[in-house]
Amino acid sequence: MASVRIREAKEGDCGDILRLIRELAEFENLSHQVKISEEALRADGFGENPFYHCLVAEILPAPGELLGPCLVGYGIYCFIYSTWKGRTIYLEDIYVMPEYRGQGIGSKIIKKVAEVRRGVGATSEDLKKQGWPWIRAAPNSAWPSWTGTRGPWTCTRP
Amino acid sequence: MASVRIREAKEGDCGDILRLIRELAEFENLSHQVKISEEALRADGFGENPFYHCLVAEILPAPGELLGPCLVGYGIYCFIYSTWKGRTIYLEDIYVMPEYRGQGIGSKIIKKVAEVRRGVGATSEDLKKQGWPWIRAAPNSAWPSWTGTRGPWTCTRP
Repeated sequence: MASVRIREAKEGDCGDILRLIRELAEFENLSHQVKISEEALRADGFGENPFYHCLVAEILPAPGELLGPCLVGYGIYCFIYSTWKGRTIYLEDIYVMPEYRGQGIGSKIIKKVAEVRRGVGATSEDLKKQGWPWIRAAPNSAWPSWTGTRGPWTCTRP
Repeated sequence: MASVRIREAKEGDCGDILRLIRELAEFENLSHQVKISEEALRADGFGENPFYHCLVAEILPAPGELLGPCLVGYGIYCFIYSTWKGRTIYLEDIYVMPEYRGQGIGSKIIKKVAEVRRGVGATSEDLKKQGWPWIRAAPNSAWPSWTGTRGPWTCTRP
């Protein structure tokens, strides 16, 4: 049986990451907003001072299966800073392909982000939940405790 | 006559930066929220992969004046990433001491952030304007053009 692995993205994943970014934008009917390129993703995420960090969800085929590993989700995060609390992790985006939802892959990505957060000693979090329409409706219980028990931010701009 | 200089913060400025962070929190009646220490500011802003970048506004005394340079404002920013637009600069906080306002020091800090933004080829911005009560009321004309002509975000959380 196929299994899923959450791992740090490699530069060679950028083509797949862009495919998933575009799928998400399409889901939101905002494909025209995607200006990012595979080259930019490669340059910006894998240098000495990367602008972002990325986790990917990879489906590993069962022994004997003909298909190779396949990326079906991602989570992109950055480190930001609170002048009150210090190190903060900022989860910019998280996405799982529709046909792979309901298996806890999104939760696994979020748990991995929480591990990274603990690893760097960040005590606070900033989740751009309002950008995730399929998560917006989720009950607070679906979120790990460090995200707090309050609902998502609602942001409006005149 | 004294002049003002906007420059990158040095590790030795952290005591003054913390003083200014505390002043801002006091202004907001939220001093109890400030958990950050001078040691954390030193460790987090001046290593190989800093968690934040900081600009400071320094008053330089006129020749013959007895007082030395004095920090009267700061702007703290980070680099984040938009999966649609790529490199993004995030201005976490900006502050100018009340007695030095009205001299364009805040605008100078913001202009310097815009220079940094252009320097790294970031095309988009994310200003935590809702966190700046003295700026919230400012007309859009007070903001450089790259912040857009729309008003500040209004964020609420249940």
